[in-house]
Amino acid sequence: MAKPWATFGVDLHLEPTGPGIRRGLTDALREAARTGRLAPGTRLPSSRSLAADLGVARNTVADAYADLVAEGWLMARQGSGTRVAERTVTSPPGSTARPDTSGLPPAPTPASRRALGLPPPPAPRPAYNLIPGTPDLASFPRTQWLKAARRALSTAPNQAFDYGDPRGRVELRTALAGYLSRARGVRADPERVLVCAGFSQGLRILGAVLRARGARTVAVESYGLDVHWNLLADAGLRTVPLPFDERGTDPGELTDQDAVLLTPAHQFPMGGTLHRDRRAAVVEWARRTGGLVVEDDYDGEFRYDRQPVGALQGLDPDHVVYAGTASKSLAPGLRLAWLVLPPDLMREVLGAKGGIDSCGALDQLTLAEFLTSGAYDRHVRAARLRYRRRRDALMVELARRAPQVHATGIAAGLHVVLRLPPGTERPALRAAAWQSLAVHALNRYQHPEATVERRDALVVGYGTPPDHAWSGALEALCAVLPE
Amino acid sequence: MAKPWATFGVDLHLEPTGPGIRRGLTDALREAARTGRLAPGTRLPSSRSLAADLGVARNTVADAYADLVAEGWLMARQGSGTRVAERTVTSPPGSTARPDTSGLPPAPTPASRRALGLPPPPAPRPAYNLIPGTPDLASFPRTQWLKAARRALSTAPNQAFDYGDPRGRVELRTALAGYLSRARGVRADPERVLVCAGFSQGLRILGAVLRARGARTVAVESYGLDVHWNLLADAGLRTVPLPFDERGTDPGELTDQDAVLLTPAHQFPMGGTLHRDRRAAVVEWARRTGGLVVEDDYDGEFRYDRQPVGALQGLDPDHVVYAGTASKSLAPGLRLAWLVLPPDLMREVLGAKGGIDSCGALDQLTLAEFLTSGAYDRHVRAARLRYRRRRDALMVELARRAPQVHATGIAAGLHVVLRLPPGTERPALRAAAWQSLAVHALNRYQHPEATVERRDALVVGYGTPPDHAWSGALEALCAVLPE
Repeated sequence: MAKPWATFGVDLHLEPTGPGIRRGLTDALREAARTGRLAPGTRLPSSRSLAADLGVARNTVADAYADLVAEGWLMARQGSGTRVAERTVTSPPGSTARPDTSGLPPAPTPASRRALGLPPPPAPRPAYNLIPGTPDLASFPRTQWLKAARRALSTAPNQAFDYGDPRGRVELRTALAGYLSRARGVRADPERVLVCAGFSQGLRILGAVLRARGARTVAVESYGLDVHWNLLADAGLRTVPLPFDERGTDPGELTDQDAVLLTPAHQFPMGGTLHRDRRAAVVEWARRTGGLVVEDDYDGEFRYDRQPVGALQGLDPDHVVYAGTASKSLAPGLRLAWLVLPPDLMREVLGAKGGIDSCGALDQLTLAEFLTSGAYDRHVRAARLRYRRRRDALMVELARRAPQVHATGIAAGLHVVLRLPPGTERPALRAAAWQSLAVHALNRYQHPEATVERRDALVVGYGTPPDHAWSGALEALCAVLPE
Repeated sequence: MAKPWATFGVDLHLEPTGPGIRRGLTDALREAARTGRLAPGTRLPSSRSLAADLGVARNTVADAYADLVAEGWLMARQGSGTRVAERTVTSPPGSTARPDTSGLPPAPTPASRRALGLPPPPAPRPAYNLIPGTPDLASFPRTQWLKAARRALSTAPNQAFDYGDPRGRVELRTALAGYLSRARGVRADPERVLVCAGFSQGLRILGAVLRARGARTVAVESYGLDVHWNLLADAGLRTVPLPFDERGTDPGELTDQDAVLLTPAHQFPMGGTLHRDRRAAVVEWARRTGGLVVEDDYDGEFRYDRQPVGALQGLDPDHVVYAGTASKSLAPGLRLAWLVLPPDLMREVLGAKGGIDSCGALDQLTLAEFLTSGAYDRHVRAARLRYRRRRDALMVELARRAPQVHATGIAAGLHVVLRLPPGTERPALRAAAWQSLAVHALNRYQHPEATVERRDALVVGYGTPPDHAWSGALEALCAVLPE
C-alpha cells in the first residue's frame, strides 16, 4: 500500500474506512503539492491503479483528484491523466487574477520562486472561465478611454500633476456625484465623495475607522466574499453573518453590532434585492443604534428587466456609506472605486487613509472625462446589452437542456447562482474540471459561521468570458450540468 | 487692552513681558483662525495700532503676524494689510498640494465645510513658490506620456485590465529592473520589485512589516520629512534621529535599532552624499545586526556635476530596500513609486499590502512603455538641464547679491539649503511672506529629537516654479536674502 505514495514522497495515514479516507487522501495530496514534495508537472497514477494499491473504491480516489483539480492543485486533461499543477498567484476570490507574462523574460523556477519568497506562478488558464467577479475584459473600451485620456491630459491644470486632495481629484468627485445621484439615487455631493483604489481600499479604510471608534463587530451577509471578511478581520473586527432566507438577508438580528456590510441592490452572490421592508429595517436600526451601514453597490449599473433599485443610501445618507466601483462597469485593473460618506465620517476616513491621494491623477481625470462626456453611459448601455443577451441565452439553454437546474435572483449583474438537484454539485464540478471549465461552487461564498443550509449550487460568472469564448463556455457549462 | 481682541472674539492671556508675549499672541491668533472664531477674510488691526493697544513692541506684533503668514493662517499684501487666510488642504510637508478648483461648482462655505468634517479650503497660491518636494509640474511631458499611453493601451493584453499581481504589472517591474540597474546601480530583478502608490505607501507597508516582526525603533536622519516620521509612528515605531555633522549622517550610533531610513545619494534636505566610509558602516551594521536599511532615492536622477553616486542597495541587496519614485522625475500626481526588496522580504510585504495591486494598470503600462521606449531618459535629460540651469543661475545671483549666504550640498536635485548669517532667517521669512514668496525655513525639516544646532537657513525648492515664473521667483528670493 505504501508503494505509490513512497514514489511521490507523500506521507499518508489513511483511516481504513468511512469518509475519512477521501479527506485523508485529499489532504495528504494537497499538502504534498503545496510543499513541493509533489513537484509541478508530476503525473499521478490513474485513479484505478491507485485505488487498487490503496484498497479503496475507485470513486474515492477520483473524487479526491477532482476536488484538488477544482482547487487548482492538480490539472486533468482527458487522455493525459492527472498532473500536479503549476500554482496560481494568490488572488481575491471572485476575481480571476492571473498576471499575463507573455513575451517577457523566462519566469524563475518554482524552487527559486520559493527562495525569493514569491507567490507561486500562475496556473495554466482554464479553457473556459465562468468565475464571477470580473467583467468581459476584452470589451474594455480602449479607444474611447484613450480619447478621454487625451482630452484629460490636454486640459488638466498643471496642479493636477501635484500631490492631490486626499479625497481624490475634484473633477472626478464632481462627475461621480452627478452620475450617482442621477443613475443610482445616491445623495452625493463632491465634498462627500472619496476616491479609492478599489472597494478593497475603501473597506480597509472603513475597517480602520470603525476599529479606531472602538467597534468590535460588523454584521455581514451569510453569502459574500471572504476577501471582504478578511479585510475586516485584519482591522480587528469580528464579522457575524445575518440570517438569509427566501426574502434575502434578514436584518432582524441586527442588535449591537457596530456596522453592517450589505449588497442591497443585488445580493452577492445569491442575486436577490433586499426587500423594501428590510431596507427600511436596516436604516431604522442604524438610526436607533448609531450603527453604520456599508452599501456595496458593486454592479448596480446592470439590471435587465427594469430600472435598478435605487441605492439604500438615498434613504438615509447620514447613516449609510455608499460604495461603488469601476471594477465591474469598466475593469478592475483601473483600481478606481468610490465611497460617498456620511458628513461626520470624512475627517476620520481621511485620517485613516493617511492624508495622501493614492490613485493616479490621470486615471481619475480620464474617468471624470469619461463620465461627463457620456462615454461611460454609452459603454454601460453596450455592456448591459451584452450581458443581458448572455444571461438570456443561458436561461434558454438551461430550460432546454437542464430543466432541473434553477437560476436564482433577479435579471441583473454579471453572474447567476444555479441551484442543482441534491447530490449533483460534486459530479458537475468534477466534470467541469475535466473540461477545463472554471466555475465555483456556492459554498465557497458562504460565511464560515453562517447557519444557512448547504445547497448544491454553482455560481456562474457569465460576464467573465470574452465574446468569442462565450458560446463555448455556455456549451461546456450545459455539458456538466445534470440533465 | 481687551478691546481689539474682543472684536475678534479672541481669548488672549498675555504674560506681561519676555518672549512669552510673542508666543502667546501667535498661539492665540492661530487658535482663533483655526477654530474659525477669526473668520477667513477678517482684516486684522495694523501691527502699530495693535501693539499700542496691547502695550507691547510693534515688532512683537509684526513678528507674530509674519509667523502666521508663513504658516498660512494669515495673508499679507502690501497696501491692504493683514487678513485671515482661507485655509489650505492638509498636504505632506515638502509638497505644495493644493487642489485646483477652477471651473467647478462653488465651494461650500467654511462653516458648511466644518459641518461636513472637511479639510479647510485651499489658501490663495503664493505668487512665487520655492517649497521643495515637487518638480516643475508645467514641464510634465504630456504629449510623450499620451503617446506612451496610446501604445500601452493598444498593446496591453486583456488580462492587464483584470485584478493584477499585487507586486504590480510585470511589464513595469521588468522595465524598472532594467532601468534601475543601468542608471542607479541597483541590483534588481523584476521578481523583487514592488510597485506602490508613492513612497508613502511603500514606507507604510515597510512600517507594518517591521512592526509585525516585533520592531520598535527606526533610526532616521536628523533632517528629513515629518510625513515619513509620522508614517512610521502610525505603524507603532519610534523614530530616533542619528547625529549629523559636516560629513552627513553619522551611522556610528546605529546599535539595536531595527531599521534605518536614509537618503544616501542626496541627503534631504541638507544636500550632501553619504560618505563612502559611512555607506560601508551602514551596510556593515545591517549585516551584523540583521537590521534593515531603507534607501530613499527620491531624486537620484538629478546630479549635475558628475555621474550620481550609485545606490547603497548595490552594496548589499540582501539588507537594503531600495526606494525610488516618479514623483520627482515625472510628477507626484502619477502616484507611482517602487521598492526593490531583499529576497526574504517580499512575502511579508505582500501580506502587509493586502494581496491586491493598488496602482492603476494603465498608468503602470504607460510608465513601462515610457521607460523602454527611451522617453523617460529623454525627459530626465531635459529636466536635468532645466534644473541645472536654475541652480547655476541661483548660484550666480547669490554670489553677486548675497555673498554672506552659502549654499550647502552637492550640485544635484531640485532644492538647495541656503545658510544665512545668524539672526537673518526671521527677517527673510517675514520679507518673503510680504512678497508672497513661499519658502521654508530649515528647522521645519529637523527631527524633534535631533540634537543638531538650530541654524538660520532656508530650503529653496528651485525645481518647483514653472519656467515662466522662475526668474521672478529668483528675483523675489534674492530680494529677501540678507545682502
